[in-house]
Amino acid sequence: MKKQQFVVVGLGRFGSSLAMELVEKGYEVLGIDRNEEIVNDMSDVLTHTVVADASDEDMLRSLGVRNFDCGIVAIGDDVQMSILSAILLKELGVKKVIAKAISLLHGRALEKLGVDRVVYPERDMGKRVAHQLVTPNLLDYIDLSDNYTIVEITAPIHLNGKTLSEVNTRARFNCSVVALQKKEGVIIAPTALDAINSGDIMVIIGTHTNIDRFEEEVINE
Amino acid sequence: MKKQQFVVVGLGRFGSSLAMELVEKGYEVLGIDRNEEIVNDMSDVLTHTVVADASDEDMLRSLGVRNFDCGIVAIGDDVQMSILSAILLKELGVKKVIAKAISLLHGRALEKLGVDRVVYPERDMGKRVAHQLVTPNLLDYIDLSDNYTIVEITAPIHLNGKTLSEVNTRARFNCSVVALQKKEGVIIAPTALDAINSGDIMVIIGTHTNIDRFEEEVINE
Amino acid sequence: MKKQQFVVVGLGRFGSSLAMELVEKGYEVLGIDRNEEIVNDMSDVLTHTVVADASDEDMLRSLGVRNFDCGIVAIGDDVQMSILSAILLKELGVKKVIAKAISLLHGRALEKLGVDRVVYPERDMGKRVAHQLVTPNLLDYIDLSDNYTIVEITAPIHLNGKTLSEVNTRARFNCSVVALQKKEGVIIAPTALDAINSGDIMVIIGTHTNIDRFEEEVINE
Amino acid sequence: MKKQQFVVVGLGRFGSSLAMELVEKGYEVLGIDRNEEIVNDMSDVLTHTVVADASDEDMLRSLGVRNFDCGIVAIGDDVQMSILSAILLKELGVKKVIAKAISLLHGRALEKLGVDRVVYPERDMGKRVAHQLVTPNLLDYIDLSDNYTIVEITAPIHLNGKTLSEVNTRARFNCSVVALQKKEGVIIAPTALDAINSGDIMVIIGTHTNIDRFEEEVINE
Amino acid sequence: MKKQQFVVVGLGRFGSSLAMELVEKGYEVLGIDRNEEIVNDMSDVLTHTVVADASDEDMLRSLGVRNFDCGIVAIGDDVQMSILSAILLKELGVKKVIAKAISLLHGRALEKLGVDRVVYPERDMGKRVAHQLVTPNLLDYIDLSDNYTIVEITAPIHLNGKTLSEVNTRARFNCSVVALQKKEGVIIAPTALDAINSGDIMVIIGTHTNIDRFEEEVINE
Amino acid sequence: MKKQQFVVVGLGRFGSSLAMELVEKGYEVLGIDRNEEIVNDMSDVLTHTVVADASDEDMLRSLGVRNFDCGIVAIGDDVQMSILSAILLKELGVKKVIAKAISLLHGRALEKLGVDRVVYPERDMGKRVAHQLVTPNLLDYIDLSDNYTIVEITAPIHLNGKTLSEVNTRARFNCSVVALQKKEGVIIAPTALDAINSGDIMVIIGTHTNIDRFEEEVINE
Amino acid sequence: MKKQQFVVVGLGRFGSSLAMELVEKGYEVLGIDRNEEIVNDMSDVLTHTVVADASDEDMLRSLGVRNFDCGIVAIGDDVQMSILSAILLKELGVKKVIAKAISLLHGRALEKLGVDRVVYPERDMGKRVAHQLVTPNLLDYIDLSDNYTIVEITAPIHLNGKTLSEVNTRARFNCSVVALQKKEGVIIAPTALDAINSGDIMVIIGTHTNIDRFEEEVINE
Amino acid sequence: MKKQQFVVVGLGRFGSSLAMELVEKGYEVLGIDRNEEIVNDMSDVLTHTVVADASDEDMLRSLGVRNFDCGIVAIGDDVQMSILSAILLKELGVKKVIAKAISLLHGRALEKLGVDRVVYPERDMGKRVAHQLVTPNLLDYIDLSDNYTIVEITAPIHLNGKTLSEVNTRARFNCSVVALQKKEGVIIAPTALDAINSGDIMVIIGTHTNIDRFEEEVINE
Repeated sequence: MKKQQFVVVGLGRFGSSLAMELVEKGYEVLGIDRNEEIVNDMSDVLTHTVVADASDEDMLRSLGVRNFDCGIVAIGDDVQMSILSAILLKELGVKKVIAKAISLLHGRALEKLGVDRVVYPERDMGKRVAHQLVTPNLLDYIDLSDNYTIVEITAPIHLNGKTLSEVNTRARFNCSVVALQKKEGVIIAPTALDAINSGDIMVIIGTHTNIDRFEEEVINE
Repeated sequence: MKKQQFVVVGLGRFGSSLAMELVEKGYEVLGIDRNEEIVNDMSDVLTHTVVADASDEDMLRSLGVRNFDCGIVAIGDDVQMSILSAILLKELGVKKVIAKAISLLHGRALEKLGVDRVVYPERDMGKRVAHQLVTPNLLDYIDLSDNYTIVEITAPIHLNGKTLSEVNTRARFNCSVVALQKKEGVIIAPTALDAINSGDIMVIIGTHTNIDRFEEEVINE
Repeated sequence: MKKQQFVVVGLGRFGSSLAMELVEKGYEVLGIDRNEEIVNDMSDVLTHTVVADASDEDMLRSLGVRNFDCGIVAIGDDVQMSILSAILLKELGVKKVIAKAISLLHGRALEKLGVDRVVYPERDMGKRVAHQLVTPNLLDYIDLSDNYTIVEITAPIHLNGKTLSEVNTRARFNCSVVALQKKEGVIIAPTALDAINSGDIMVIIGTHTNIDRFEEEVINE
Repeated sequence: MKKQQFVVVGLGRFGSSLAMELVEKGYEVLGIDRNEEIVNDMSDVLTHTVVADASDEDMLRSLGVRNFDCGIVAIGDDVQMSILSAILLKELGVKKVIAKAISLLHGRALEKLGVDRVVYPERDMGKRVAHQLVTPNLLDYIDLSDNYTIVEITAPIHLNGKTLSEVNTRARFNCSVVALQKKEGVIIAPTALDAINSGDIMVIIGTHTNIDRFEEEVINE
Repeated sequence: MKKQQFVVVGLGRFGSSLAMELVEKGYEVLGIDRNEEIVNDMSDVLTHTVVADASDEDMLRSLGVRNFDCGIVAIGDDVQMSILSAILLKELGVKKVIAKAISLLHGRALEKLGVDRVVYPERDMGKRVAHQLVTPNLLDYIDLSDNYTIVEITAPIHLNGKTLSEVNTRARFNCSVVALQKKEGVIIAPTALDAINSGDIMVIIGTHTNIDRFEEEVINE
Repeated sequence: MKKQQFVVVGLGRFGSSLAMELVEKGYEVLGIDRNEEIVNDMSDVLTHTVVADASDEDMLRSLGVRNFDCGIVAIGDDVQMSILSAILLKELGVKKVIAKAISLLHGRALEKLGVDRVVYPERDMGKRVAHQLVTPNLLDYIDLSDNYTIVEITAPIHLNGKTLSEVNTRARFNCSVVALQKKEGVIIAPTALDAINSGDIMVIIGTHTNIDRFEEEVINE
Repeated sequence: MKKQQFVVVGLGRFGSSLAMELVEKGYEVLGIDRNEEIVNDMSDVLTHTVVADASDEDMLRSLGVRNFDCGIVAIGDDVQMSILSAILLKELGVKKVIAKAISLLHGRALEKLGVDRVVYPERDMGKRVAHQLVTPNLLDYIDLSDNYTIVEITAPIHLNGKTLSEVNTRARFNCSVVALQKKEGVIIAPTALDAINSGDIMVIIGTHTNIDRFEEEVINE
Repeated sequence: MKKQQFVVVGLGRFGSSLAMELVEKGYEVLGIDRNEEIVNDMSDVLTHTVVADASDEDMLRSLGVRNFDCGIVAIGDDVQMSILSAILLKELGVKKVIAKAISLLHGRALEKLGVDRVVYPERDMGKRVAHQLVTPNLLDYIDLSDNYTIVEITAPIHLNGKTLSEVNTRARFNCSVVALQKKEGVIIAPTALDAINSGDIMVIIGTHTNIDRFEEEVINE
């Protein structure tokens, strides 16, 4: 399968970070920004960079934007430019268009204009950091469904040496430890006899309610 | 255990989203911003809000900032204000201070000044979105360690009706399906006989290399 | 039939002129602009006026915008505000939304967002004035179809005293004089014996080509 | 007769649209604007373009402005420049000067300075759009005199199949249908036996009062 | 004869100096400026003062501007405001309107709009000071016609004690000493026997050429 | 005597008018302004022109400013630049420095710094125009001393045909007609038998009080 | 002797520091600044504070400025305001006026206007810090004359325990140790037998050349 | 010992003065400022100058900043730039970093970031000038410890001819005259018989209290 090609419009903090990650994963990325200095900074990092106004239809066409598989409109605070640029990418034939929104109203406009996916990076990170703040041992998490979540938690010192059967998450909280990351490596699907060391990272699946109870009663004990 | 109290300095998109999430989780949050309009918008949502300059030591002291367990400096683009505010929170005795940085140099300054944790919301979201873009069925993921990752992937149509033993992730890719979210509910630690339906969400754990191979050979087939 | 109610967003030259004309025709008009001075100037003229930000959903909702039959987004140069305001009017349930565009790209965005009609006032007036400039006796015109047009032309001095049969537009140019406005009144469907006086206004229908020939050979003679 | 030559001062939306229409009609147009970018955009479209300050007498003289038959001052919001430029065009000997005004006071100044015709594009379009909004089937219209008007109306579905004698505009409303545009062509001066199809465009002449009654009783029925 | 009443629009350096001089001469002066601070400074000095926009027709009318005998448009650098204000004063019925111009083109516009007299204060003072600079003893002068001038010159030390017959301006330069201002008083039409003292001011009439010769040969000797 | 050389700093309306007048009188003038456009406009008119900052000592020295006989600081509104420039001209050895002031305080500063003469062009013109406004026939005047003035007045129609003895200015007002400018030439020291024609310009000398009485009783009769 | 009273104009970093120091020393200080916020911050600290424009003569007079013994013009970067304010203080009768200058030209202007002392705080501190940087043990110094200086130097570790006669500054460098600050107190005019401890501060007097040699050979050894 | 090398970041009044003083003392100085004009002015004076952004890590590294012995961050009002630049100098390996602060909070931030010495030039000069103002004869002073000070005082006229034993500072005030600068030279450690002349500069050491008493009773007598 031929590798996807990406065009990233707007090379601010979000856009440049996204573009660099794509390049690191081995994809071709065309970066566009109207700020010449920003483009110069990224010119060594991305496959192609162009100083251009993202609402200039002729320019986008001449860049062959329609040949790209995916366009990301990562424009910061300029709602007008974000909207006009998203329309142009769609009209010029970019298969999939992702756009960053700075407000729900902005997001709704993008969706109505046919944008395939709208992201709210700062809002999402706000929630994610909030979640981590209230559970100090929580490293990261995925919300699986409205009910279930998978959390990655550092084992506190008072669990040191205990086996999973002693902690007994399944019986007490109906949660399941699906992995245990120890210094010496990761144990996938650990057994009841596997022992926890302080500092191990426990990956646990369960409902939000049960995970919350587990965190309060076992981790933050 | 008495619930933590939070003070959030800077109520832009990141700060307000973080603050609201904390309130929804039942915590008390004091929100501070020097923009009166922004503070008014948040005054119904947060426990307390104040229009104040975050580098005004007397103001912060009179707000009793030292009684807060955790301070979040979520100031947007004003590096000066971010740094002075972070120093003040530390000096006034806030136990834990988290701060948002907009560049690595800014982040290094914050760390040197004793900030407990520095976050880069837009950079992190850029990476996260990049990851999802290159694996269209990927919904979310956690990087467990440098090697291991847990991914949440939508089952494509060509897996419809297959059992886990038929897909055989463990033998072929050394990956383990730790949960299967179906319309009717979540199966934790599914067995080899559990069948996948198109649209089910598979939660899989494995090394990056193996998960990548699995995605390419099975999902994006 | 109950009279339509109109909400006009943006009270610049175009918006205020449109709103005043509606009021003169006996309709109720709510005028919205974020410039307080402009709103004050119009407050005696329009049925209702409000100083508001047209992208403020709560404000628009509290104004009962959904009860209006027709919304006109007459915002001048602020594409962002024009787009967000148009979305809100549609979402809040305004039956018909008309919006002014300042460029084709802006117009396309508005159409994609479901705006019922997009107008380009300055562009249209540019064309209309150009048309009148090149035919000095032309007062006004309607383009009936791609082919046919109706023009309103002042009779030049050399036609003074001639009857329509002498001018013979029908035979020579396949055009028809459908009305003749004389000082003493308008003759609808004048006969071949009706005489033209210099300064009469002739209303003539015909194809563009024929009207052009008539203008060149008879009027601008 | 030698074709007129036009000089258009100010290439904003109104000026550029007017200038382009003149070029399309086969006239020579010199476009002047002090914004270099705007001039570049128009340089392929107009006969000649110059970046110049329209109040620079030497520049206008060196451009041979006095040889032009007609000058259009289409300057946007800069009343000072509009007035000085209009004076210069008159003084340099341009035969006919048309100018756009943005307020009645501005218009009066232009008239006092000898401008041959003052236009108010946004105000006029405001009125025109207002007229169309309150008569949904109205496509366009000409005001013939203070009393008479010619309107172009789409026939609504409930007139489908009726003959003109059945509608009987002349007897009931003293209005005359002077043309009927059907899919298959335009019938000029249709007879009483000509039938209307839904969607046909009727061109009707009559007094404002009578046309209004006709619209209310027959069209908007 | 009833004393004239003046309205001065624009209270900058020129306008305020003019207005104060009129008040000192015993006339009533209404001063208008849109800058509140400037108006406050003048409110004790002038008969009436108003903070107003000089292009606001309703405001000028409500101030009863039409009852004033003379209006002076002393607006500084805002050509637009100067022109609109001048039109309004004329239209509202001010009998005589004087206006300050900052360029010849501006002056021509004002004249075309019916302004009764246009003054160029800085240009005129520039000329006057230049004249004085090149004739160090020249105190002031009036240009009587294209040919004749009256000058006021300080007698240099080398004329001390000479009688007018000794200087003999009439025979040598065809100039006439019409007055001699001495410490003890002014001698009008001095005789040939009147003696000059160093420092006396001589008022001399003659043609430019002759006065120039007199200055060079007698004064600057 | 070698002709004086002038350096004019600041080429605004006052400075450029003064500089041009000096050039017309045959003097060499070096014009300095920091605005390149202004300097270009004057480069054909003045002997030398330079784009320079008038507070740049090295620049002024390198221009050989010390060789100039007279420096005029005609800087508009920038008090700082006016003061620094005046100091530099004095220090660099310009024999005589004249400076324009925009306020009395500014003027006092200039005098304290050794400026030889301070002028207030707009204030002086304000007074001069005020004087002329209240005496409609007054063309120009010189204030000879605190008491005496010379005025140049147009003879009104009701003086037509009268001889000077009939008007009898000397006996009635103790004023003396020192010249009479008629169409056919200027009569210096006219006799009692010389007749006045309407439109003649009378040059009269007298005390302010007497001239005022003469104006009221004879001219404005 | 009655205590001096001070008025400080401009309460920036230099002015406020100076004013506070005077208050601490027990003097009455009136602080003036046109920035209201700054004045509020100082209102608790200084004897009197006023928000005022320092070039407003009436204001300064009404504040009774003439009764002050000393005025300090500590205005930051606004040369115009600094100069006008200095003139006013002198004219209003302040006995002694000190002013801060930001350039030599500014300083010369102030001196010509009669300012009693001109200070260049940033320039002087630049020199002082430079001096300290190149002699790491140098704490402070006074330049006594062009030749002599008094320096305050920390004794380095290699001088620990040595007596002054061992160091022998007088014979070797013709410098005299006039004081020796030890932990237990200051020895004024120490004798040759007094011993130095590492960390003692030596106050030494000598010519620049000799002190430099002493620093290089003994201190920085 | 190899001479120290200095890098000065920020060439405003403080930075440029410091840098020039270092150059005069024979040290190599690299001056950095982002203002090109400022850098040009200093390029003839300093050893090396560069136009650069002081928070650009790559730029600082490429300038070989790590080889410098001492870095001075003399940035004016831009706290952000000051902080980021200070971090970079430390991180890049500059041995000693001095930084200017504009507020105590700024200073605390710099210290926490590892800056070796923080200076407050304007605050310090404010204090120094205040000290001199209240003791008119005081020329300069060093604070030796919290108790002791050395002052440099001009001998007033009433001390003329007196010997030190007559003034008797040691007995009366416990102060010691350590040097006496006379027109003919400096007397170090003068004896009781040395006579004072009016205008001599006395260098005196003593406690603050005693020096103050001496000033009041002897100098300001």
